[in-house]
Amino acid sequence: MTKKASIGVTGLAVMGRNLARNLARHGHTVALHNRSGERTRELVERFGSEGEFVPAYSAQEFVDALERPRQIVIMVKAGAPTDAVIEEFAPLLERGDVIVDAGNAHFADTRRREAALRERGLHFVGTGVSGGEEGALHGPSIMPGGSAESYASLGPLLEDIAAKVDGTPCCAHIGPDGAGHFVKMVHNGIEYADMQLIAESFDLLRGALGLEPAQIADVFRTWNTGRLDSYLIEITAEVLAHTDAATGKPFVDVVADAAEQKGTGRWTVQIGLDLGIPISGIAEATFARSLSGHTGLRAATRGLAGPERTPLTGAAAERFADDVEQALYASKVVAYAQGFNQIQAGSAEYDWNIDLGAVASLWRGGCIIRAKFLDDIRAAYEAEPALPTLLTSGDFRKAVEDAQDAWRSVVSTAVRLGIPTPGFSTALAYYDALRADRLPAALVQGQRDYFGAHTYRRVDREGVFHTEWATEARAERPA
Amino acid sequence: MTKKASIGVTGLAVMGRNLARNLARHGHTVALHNRSGERTRELVERFGSEGEFVPAYSAQEFVDALERPRQIVIMVKAGAPTDAVIEEFAPLLERGDVIVDAGNAHFADTRRREAALRERGLHFVGTGVSGGEEGALHGPSIMPGGSAESYASLGPLLEDIAAKVDGTPCCAHIGPDGAGHFVKMVHNGIEYADMQLIAESFDLLRGALGLEPAQIADVFRTWNTGRLDSYLIEITAEVLAHTDAATGKPFVDVVADAAEQKGTGRWTVQIGLDLGIPISGIAEATFARSLSGHTGLRAATRGLAGPERTPLTGAAAERFADDVEQALYASKVVAYAQGFNQIQAGSAEYDWNIDLGAVASLWRGGCIIRAKFLDDIRAAYEAEPALPTLLTSGDFRKAVEDAQDAWRSVVSTAVRLGIPTPGFSTALAYYDALRADRLPAALVQGQRDYFGAHTYRRVDREGVFHTEWATEARAERPA
Repeated sequence: MTKKASIGVTGLAVMGRNLARNLARHGHTVALHNRSGERTRELVERFGSEGEFVPAYSAQEFVDALERPRQIVIMVKAGAPTDAVIEEFAPLLERGDVIVDAGNAHFADTRRREAALRERGLHFVGTGVSGGEEGALHGPSIMPGGSAESYASLGPLLEDIAAKVDGTPCCAHIGPDGAGHFVKMVHNGIEYADMQLIAESFDLLRGALGLEPAQIADVFRTWNTGRLDSYLIEITAEVLAHTDAATGKPFVDVVADAAEQKGTGRWTVQIGLDLGIPISGIAEATFARSLSGHTGLRAATRGLAGPERTPLTGAAAERFADDVEQALYASKVVAYAQGFNQIQAGSAEYDWNIDLGAVASLWRGGCIIRAKFLDDIRAAYEAEPALPTLLTSGDFRKAVEDAQDAWRSVVSTAVRLGIPTPGFSTALAYYDALRADRLPAALVQGQRDYFGAHTYRRVDREGVFHTEWATEARAERPA
Repeated sequence: MTKKASIGVTGLAVMGRNLARNLARHGHTVALHNRSGERTRELVERFGSEGEFVPAYSAQEFVDALERPRQIVIMVKAGAPTDAVIEEFAPLLERGDVIVDAGNAHFADTRRREAALRERGLHFVGTGVSGGEEGALHGPSIMPGGSAESYASLGPLLEDIAAKVDGTPCCAHIGPDGAGHFVKMVHNGIEYADMQLIAESFDLLRGALGLEPAQIADVFRTWNTGRLDSYLIEITAEVLAHTDAATGKPFVDVVADAAEQKGTGRWTVQIGLDLGIPISGIAEATFARSLSGHTGLRAATRGLAGPERTPLTGAAAERFADDVEQALYASKVVAYAQGFNQIQAGSAEYDWNIDLGAVASLWRGGCIIRAKFLDDIRAAYEAEPALPTLLTSGDFRKAVEDAQDAWRSVVSTAVRLGIPTPGFSTALAYYDALRADRLPAALVQGQRDYFGAHTYRRVDREGVFHTEWATEARAERPA
């Protein structure tokens, strides 16, 4: 009789295949299953020498190949396909077995599935996995939700295959039910914001200084040796330095400038709105992508008048790249501060008790937003777990305060030259709104009381008040 | 036997009561019903002389009081209470009768209810009603959805009680099922954006010029005689000119600066994201409200360093109020352009065939965003119903192009002085992104292809491509 497998993977497209190979390479016996047997056979043929695989060609055979408690990783499309696969396997499993959804599910679906399977005595683990195909094979960042009991059996395997930073695995138990997929969602939202800020930096260096993409690649390479050191900055330099073979032009100039999105950025903003957390950086990045794709609208508006765009010269030009680095860093701190506040709010709303320092720690490697910077965020939350915002943490506060002159200068330059920087602008507006003694929201409350009797509070007395706007005397009364 | 009523209203809190009185004042016999009979009795006692009312103290009595087809207006809280009232009355009604939900329902709920009642042979009309308590009594703006057949009987009554502008009622059949509530939702989202832009204008005039609220009230009064002529500008002047009786201070200075929201702004942004329409003006306004209410976060960040804030002087000061007027006007055009594009997208998505000119026309009076400006929008869409955006319509285009220097100057001043203007900034970024020849979205597509093999399109060839980033040669291949 064949050795039983300690874990199984069903859904053997490239992500599932690479996760299975990663598990086998770490010495785990992996059961394999796919809707069509073709992919199962192919995996064993091509990669069978990498470790111990147990191919299975029916659901029952797959389940029988697993030792107890059975652990089945599902890697199929989010939505109905995931529900279908769960319904295929759940009836074959026994109390205490674990189903793992490693796809990009909406956390609300994960909560629903977890509750339903818990009723049936099964553990359901919704886990975020970031790092793309390469990450899945060589070490992703892993964000599992679900019960502590399921993590006791599953955690060691996931920690084995996760990326490592300073010997620490980029995997930790995030919290109950939907916590893992929620954190993965915010990861992707932050990724949107980070990419938008990088894109604006490129656009500014080109528009204000007249640099070519290859020259801008060098600027990004330099930045990557400092506090901006990160995977996204690194690959930005690679993309900008690449020359299109067919035309000899810079690659970035032959790519259509219509960015696509897969929905997690949108989800992040929608959930941020539900939670009442201002996550304007992610929102602007999402809008920037959708705007770029409205090609008909853009064709109709392309001729709208703009300002003269004369490149900077002299001292302003000398300083500009450094100013952009500071604006990028400060805006990035704001975007991450907003994202971490959203996780904090989600954790409070759903009683997840998420450790923000652990989240920052496991994003240090394996995932798309991996960066040196995240170690500073980890340290900030370890020092003060209930930090109201990253902006008040000592080092970040100083860095952003020191950057503000350059940040203001860059946004002003963009506005003057007509270069759109919605990400930089909203980050700066957020910073200025947070530090304001008084916001004009007081006027908004006055307007709302005027037209809708929505009432207001006062700065000097407790209570809720309404002014009789329609009468001459405009008397105020408690409401 | 009493005369039968041509319409009935159930839910007699102030909005329902005022709608019932408005109907009676226009010569319609109105049946009245409320969960507790107290309010029914009170309405008849206090306002019985205004017209013909038929009070009913049970659901059956209410239904029996109505002529066929029965028309019942429900004015209760959105959500479960609305469903409960529908379930109370639907079984008592007959084929062809009409249930009208005049509350602020989510359009998706309205679609669900309309479909369910249609199955049972009943018409369901979800209608937006804007104008608050005063509007309900003296003439609101009314946005009914539902079947054309229901509008044939109901429409004349609604048009009777609606506000009138140049003799035209501020009421028109918007489209099937959820169309009316969708348009009301976007109305409220635009209202958020408009109020935020006005609030930023106030904040700028105060922070950059050092004006007192009463002086700023005068500025708004002057603006209200020009192209910004609108209800919101008018009441802004009233609110700013008001002195708090208890303290002798400007009213706006004693109001707590934490703005509240009732959810329709949030819905608008969430649906805008689903539809892929960049509605950054409404999003920033919603975030500004939620930020203002995070009092703990604001207390923690109040000491963050800002720039020197020295009021403007000389020529810059002289010009500033006029510059702000131009920035406000241009930003307002952008906010409305985004909102109308969202209606256009919703109409396409749900096959509503909404007439955007008619929407602008019925917002000219009765509702919170009523403004002279909306007549220009009506004219723009009447001239070109498929206008890609208001920004390309002749007069708006010229006005915004003429305003752009002032707009840029105002945003730069705000950034330099540290006054948060997320609304102005995002509007300008949207304008600059729309007119850009190339957006850095091309870099985003390159990054996405690099880390996730998400593929890209090219500017010079049809097809979808992927570059083999991991190999030395970085060959491009069709994907």
